[in-house]
Amino acid sequence: MSSFESMWDDLAPIGRDPHSGGYRRFAWTSEDGALREWFAGESRRRGMDVVADRAGNLWAWTADPDTHGPGLVLGSHLDSVPDGGAFDGPLGIVSAFAALDLLRERGVALARPVAVACFADEEGARFGVACAGSRLLTGVLDPDRARALTDDGGTTMAEAMAAARADPRHLSRDDETLRRIGTFVELHVEQGRALADVPGEAGAVGVASAIWPHGRWRLDLHGRADHAGTTRLADRDDPMLALAAATLEARAAAERHGALATVGKVRVHPNGVNAIPSAVTAWLDARGPFEGDVRRVVAAVGTASGTAPVEESWTPHTPFDVRLRDRLAAALGGAPVLPTGAGHDAGILAAAGIPAAMLFVRNPTGVSHSPAEHAELPDCLAGVSALARVVEELAC
Amino acid sequence: MSSFESMWDDLAPIGRDPHSGGYRRFAWTSEDGALREWFAGESRRRGMDVVADRAGNLWAWTADPDTHGPGLVLGSHLDSVPDGGAFDGPLGIVSAFAALDLLRERGVALARPVAVACFADEEGARFGVACAGSRLLTGVLDPDRARALTDDGGTTMAEAMAAARADPRHLSRDDETLRRIGTFVELHVEQGRALADVPGEAGAVGVASAIWPHGRWRLDLHGRADHAGTTRLADRDDPMLALAAATLEARAAAERHGALATVGKVRVHPNGVNAIPSAVTAWLDARGPFEGDVRRVVAAVGTASGTAPVEESWTPHTPFDVRLRDRLAAALGGAPVLPTGAGHDAGILAAAGIPAAMLFVRNPTGVSHSPAEHAELPDCLAGVSALARVVEELAC
Repeated sequence: MSSFESMWDDLAPIGRDPHSGGYRRFAWTSEDGALREWFAGESRRRGMDVVADRAGNLWAWTADPDTHGPGLVLGSHLDSVPDGGAFDGPLGIVSAFAALDLLRERGVALARPVAVACFADEEGARFGVACAGSRLLTGVLDPDRARALTDDGGTTMAEAMAAARADPRHLSRDDETLRRIGTFVELHVEQGRALADVPGEAGAVGVASAIWPHGRWRLDLHGRADHAGTTRLADRDDPMLALAAATLEARAAAERHGALATVGKVRVHPNGVNAIPSAVTAWLDARGPFEGDVRRVVAAVGTASGTAPVEESWTPHTPFDVRLRDRLAAALGGAPVLPTGAGHDAGILAAAGIPAAMLFVRNPTGVSHSPAEHAELPDCLAGVSALARVVEELAC
Repeated sequence: MSSFESMWDDLAPIGRDPHSGGYRRFAWTSEDGALREWFAGESRRRGMDVVADRAGNLWAWTADPDTHGPGLVLGSHLDSVPDGGAFDGPLGIVSAFAALDLLRERGVALARPVAVACFADEEGARFGVACAGSRLLTGVLDPDRARALTDDGGTTMAEAMAAARADPRHLSRDDETLRRIGTFVELHVEQGRALADVPGEAGAVGVASAIWPHGRWRLDLHGRADHAGTTRLADRDDPMLALAAATLEARAAAERHGALATVGKVRVHPNGVNAIPSAVTAWLDARGPFEGDVRRVVAAVGTASGTAPVEESWTPHTPFDVRLRDRLAAALGGAPVLPTGAGHDAGILAAAGIPAAMLFVRNPTGVSHSPAEHAELPDCLAGVSALARVVEELAC
């Protein structure tokens, strides 16, 4: 069994729902703690020192970057969306360790320090802000705002971090850590079907061109609680009707403007069968190739729902370093180059001015954020080889 | 302070949300246990024996109905919808005790046994079946089905009853208890504005004519979980769109057919901001003066959502005993007679062939199932006097 498969098997049971087969690996939970311990164990086994930065991200270095100069960082994240797949995040970290194993087996020596990074809270599934770890690291997420973010149970991020023995008082932009990153390369399962349309080995691995502009908005829809069996239709103020209008307009406006828009999370209060709701909170996810189109979709949804969408996060169009992208595509024998609608820590680092790139591993169905998310083992191993080739190119 | 006000003050803090001022008093919870203890205490204080029937409903008798013949039963329920008001249920029980106090103060002797009843789980807020206690008592809810009903946390009714020291193995139609009920009269806050339109004392208390046919249906809307940021619109199977169509059609069809229809409860899975849901469960409440119209509304919602609604409960048109109704209206000096869209335990008993009637106390706004639910104190005290008059008419 390859080291890739062995690590994959070790991770498989952590946070898996026995019914759906999907994962619930939310930031600063016991499942997250188990994943971070696994990361530390794999690092130690390879003689790599693990340090946590001020934002709670983990860095395992092969050599001291403060002494030997900024290094090459590989890695991704281990947390998941609710009922998420096994690949989104973990594939990048497992492949990074496996790529270093492959080079060691081949007797290839590293000329520069190389790290594997484990970013905290990439999905934002618990506290609502995606890429929280890399946003804190680069200073684009305000530490006070982050500490005060609450999960659905009312627990703040500060309380959750403290319960996981991470100190929330240290949250801030971390220049000491940022200085150590010469180049960042994140391998990730593709979350669409661009590579699935490329036959054979040529479509196993691709290189990212850019991340679409994307964001999340909250819709606070207010009504008046009342009895569902006795209140005349004309006397009602029912926020479920506004939710319905917002949901349908999200789809219609996205079609009009060539973008994507989704209402995937809803909270209804009081959520009783025979009670007209007093309030509905809905979240809108919108993205697309062009910022103007995305903004037009959000405005249309606001108009349809009769409320002003509250922006919870926003990431502008993020092109990856063009020279780095072309160099990696060439080193991988002319790998396909493709954009993505998904946000990633690599995009946050790229926006902060760090040379960053991404490799995508083919996803045969394109399905992601789902228990059905999948990549074939030969494609995963092709990803490991590609990542090893990247290390040779940039750090050997 | 009247005994009514004193009892009202004692109940006020139990299960009240400090933020909204609304109540969460769900069946077989600790709040429900505190309410049942309060009921037993008030009964004992008046020398009334409390017995629980096989369904978990409580009965406090002034004299033994097995010896002295079937009696007059007053009462209602103490549980609430989520974030419900203080009056729906408790007003009927507090008024019943206060009416007996009033007769005692006046030296009026009872010629027949009189009971105050506390029905279990009237709202069905936790397990989804309204009037569960009276339906079990009369045998229209199957005990095996009841025991297996689950709340949102996956706890079964059987487990919840056992945790509250009620024995779920005894659930069944209870003929011994039914034989004791000569007549049932439930006083309840009005959940509409019919009495609010009658000025002065004449509109303080009304008598019910009938309960509209009404029911609850579950819509199981299936889709395919996927990434909200990368899945093309054409590739999506998003059940939120079916929810939106169902919500809008519920309103439109209710308007077309002169009925009421509400989607008040929704469960989204996995409920993540950046995940297209794999499934949405929604509940439809539909009622109206005519069964055919209600059925047409439910069918239209099913067609709009692309699924067959699953009937969770159904109550046909329930007229109250006409002679009893007219006798009470006359005894109350020609009180207004009005129908209602809300289901009640009195309707379940009426459908089981027990002479039953209801008194409604004026609700100035008509708002119910809401923290804003209200009745003025003079109207509540008029309700107590009316109930005392009913006891004189039927049991003295």
